[in-house]
Amino acid sequence: MADGREIVYFDESDDADRALRDTRDLPASMPVPTIRYDARLDEWVGMSDHRQDRTYLPPDEQCPLCPSTSQRATEIPATSYDVVVFENRFPAFAVLPAGQEHGEEHDRSRERSGDGRCEVVCFTADHDSSFSALTPRRVGTVIEAWSDRTSTLSALPHVEQVFCFENRGKEIGVTLSHPHGQIYAYPFLPAATKQMLTAARAHRGRTWRNLFADLLAAEQESEERVVVRGEEWTAFVPFAARWPLEVHLYPHRQVPDLPSLTDAERAELAEVYLDVLRRMEAVFDDTLPYIAAWHQAPVRIDRDLAYLHLQVFSIRRAAGRLKYLAGSESAMGAFLNDVSPESAAKMLRDAR
Amino acid sequence: MADGREIVYFDESDDADRALRDTRDLPASMPVPTIRYDARLDEWVGMSDHRQDRTYLPPDEQCPLCPSTSQRATEIPATSYDVVVFENRFPAFAVLPAGQEHGEEHDRSRERSGDGRCEVVCFTADHDSSFSALTPRRVGTVIEAWSDRTSTLSALPHVEQVFCFENRGKEIGVTLSHPHGQIYAYPFLPAATKQMLTAARAHRGRTWRNLFADLLAAEQESEERVVVRGEEWTAFVPFAARWPLEVHLYPHRQVPDLPSLTDAERAELAEVYLDVLRRMEAVFDDTLPYIAAWHQAPVRIDRDLAYLHLQVFSIRRAAGRLKYLAGSESAMGAFLNDVSPESAAKMLRDAR
Repeated sequence: MADGREIVYFDESDDADRALRDTRDLPASMPVPTIRYDARLDEWVGMSDHRQDRTYLPPDEQCPLCPSTSQRATEIPATSYDVVVFENRFPAFAVLPAGQEHGEEHDRSRERSGDGRCEVVCFTADHDSSFSALTPRRVGTVIEAWSDRTSTLSALPHVEQVFCFENRGKEIGVTLSHPHGQIYAYPFLPAATKQMLTAARAHRGRTWRNLFADLLAAEQESEERVVVRGEEWTAFVPFAARWPLEVHLYPHRQVPDLPSLTDAERAELAEVYLDVLRRMEAVFDDTLPYIAAWHQAPVRIDRDLAYLHLQVFSIRRAAGRLKYLAGSESAMGAFLNDVSPESAAKMLRDAR
Repeated sequence: MADGREIVYFDESDDADRALRDTRDLPASMPVPTIRYDARLDEWVGMSDHRQDRTYLPPDEQCPLCPSTSQRATEIPATSYDVVVFENRFPAFAVLPAGQEHGEEHDRSRERSGDGRCEVVCFTADHDSSFSALTPRRVGTVIEAWSDRTSTLSALPHVEQVFCFENRGKEIGVTLSHPHGQIYAYPFLPAATKQMLTAARAHRGRTWRNLFADLLAAEQESEERVVVRGEEWTAFVPFAARWPLEVHLYPHRQVPDLPSLTDAERAELAEVYLDVLRRMEAVFDDTLPYIAAWHQAPVRIDRDLAYLHLQVFSIRRAAGRLKYLAGSESAMGAFLNDVSPESAAKMLRDAR
C-alpha cells in the first residue's frame, strides 16, 4: 500500500488481477502506539492517541473498504475481491520500525511499545451485505484467511495472542458499515485469556481434566441450553451467560487455534456459524448489534490448557432496548443478565 | 413502603414530617434473583429476568423518584426530602424471605439465591438538578447516607462487598434522569475487587508495602497526572487509565471504607468530589455521561489489603463521540484508550 502497509488477497478463483498498485498520496505510517501496565488490576492497557482521528461513519460513496474504481482509490487497489486482509491504518498495535523503541520516558516495566499488529478483514466487496448473508463457501474463505493470518502473526517476535473478531452495528461503535472484521495480534496476554487459563489450570489440578471440555460435555448432556449440535461443533448458551444473547461454539475436539482445524471441521464450522448468526438475528424484530470473538490459545504458553472457541454475543435485550454496561459491570466486573440462559436458548432454537 | 420495602430518610433538619405512609397498591415483592457461577472465568453473574420490566425513561411528570404530591404517589411517600434511600423495586440482589432457597434446580456450587440487597439513593428532591450542582453540605449528607448504609448492609449475613455508585446519562443506559445513585450489597466478591486484592497481595509479598498507597505516592511525586491535591485527598488520572476521562480519588490515609473516614476527611471529600466532577463536565462541549464508583474493602476478608478510593470515568471521548466497548474490551478484557492520561490530566487541570 502507498504508506508501506501490507495487503493480502484470499481469492476463490485464480484469474484475479492483483498487480494493481495503491496510487494514493498517503502520509507516512502513524506513530507507534504504546502499552501501559495497570498495577491496580495487573493488566496492560493499549494507548493510542492518534486513533482519535480515525475515519468515522463516512457516507457509503466514500467507504474505504469498497474496491477501488477508476474514479476513486480506496484502501483496496483492486477493482474487485473475495476476501482481503490489510494492516489497519489506525492501529492500536503496530510493529516498531527497526532501531526504534517507544515508551522511553517511563520504566519498561510500566510502559513499552505496542509492538503487535492490527489488521482489517473484508468479508465481501458488497458494501450492503453482512456476514450472515455470506455463502458457506465465502465463510470458508474467511476461515482460511483467519487461519492463515493467525499462523503468520503468531510468528511475529512480540505477539502473545492472535484475536480474530467482528464488531457489528453502530450501537457498539462500529465506524464503518462495510462487512468486515479485525485481527489484533496482542503484545501481551489479555485479561480474559489470563483469567480463563488460571481457571483451567485450577480445574486441571482438581480433576486432571480440561475445563472447557468438561463445560462442553455438561452442556451436551443437559441439552437445555444447546442451540445447534453438529458432528464437529456444538453451539450453546453458557450456563452463566452475561449477555442477553450469548452463544459459545466449541469444536468437539480440543484444539488450540484455527490453524489446527481439519477440513471437515472447517466445512461444518461455516454452516454452524451461519446458522447461529441467522438465529441470533431472527430473535428480535430489530437490527442486531453483535460481537463475534475467537478465543484462541496464546502463541507461546499454556497451549495445552486452552480450547479454541467462538463467543458471539449481542447487547440487544429486546426490540428497541440495549443492555448497557454501567457501574456494576464497568467498574466492578460484576455482570447482571436480565435474560435467563434457558429462555435465550429456547428463543434461539425456535428462531428462523 | 406498600410492598414491604424499607425506606430511610437522611434529613438536614429536624422538622421533616416522616409519618407519611405509602398508600399505593403495589404487587408483592419480586421473585428473588439468583447468581450463577461462570467456571470459564471464575466469576459469579447475577441473573434477574424480572428486571426486563423495569421502569424505562418515564416522562418527567411520572418520575418515581420525585416526592409524592396530593395528586400522585411516587416511591417516596414524603412531600419533600433531602437525601432518601430505599430498596430498589427491581433489584439485582435481594434478601431471601426466611425459609426460602433459590436455585434448587442446580448444584449450589453453580447457582444460589442472589442474597444481597439493592438500594436507590436520591440526592435531591429537585428533578432537574445533578450531583455536580449539589451544595457541599448536601454532598456531605450523601456521604453520611453512603457511610450509614455501608455499615448496615455490611451486617447482612451473605453480603461480601458494599458498592456505592452513580450512573449518569442515558448514553450509559440510565433509565431515570432524576439525580440518584445506587448501592449494591453483593453476595459474592466482584471480579475487579478480586483482581485488585490479588495484585495487592503480590505487591505486599514483593515489597512489604500497600499497592494503592504506593500508586498514590508515585502520582503525588510525579504530579503530571494530578488533577486536584487537597490536605486529605488527591485526585489523579491513573498512569494506565482505560477510559478517555478517568479520575481516581484517594484519601491520604489508608482506610478500608467510607464509615472509617474522619469528619475532616468527609468535609474535604465533599469539596474535592464536586471540584473533580465539575472539571470533568467542563472538558467537552457536550453532556457528560459518567460512572462514579466507590471501591471499598470487602466486608469479611482482606480489609487490611484494600484502600478506599473513588473511580470516576466517562465514555465521552470528544464532543459528539463516545467510546464504545467492542470486541477487545468486552470479549478479551484488553482496553484501548485513545486519550493519553497526561493530556486528560492537563485538560482537567485547565477546565472550569
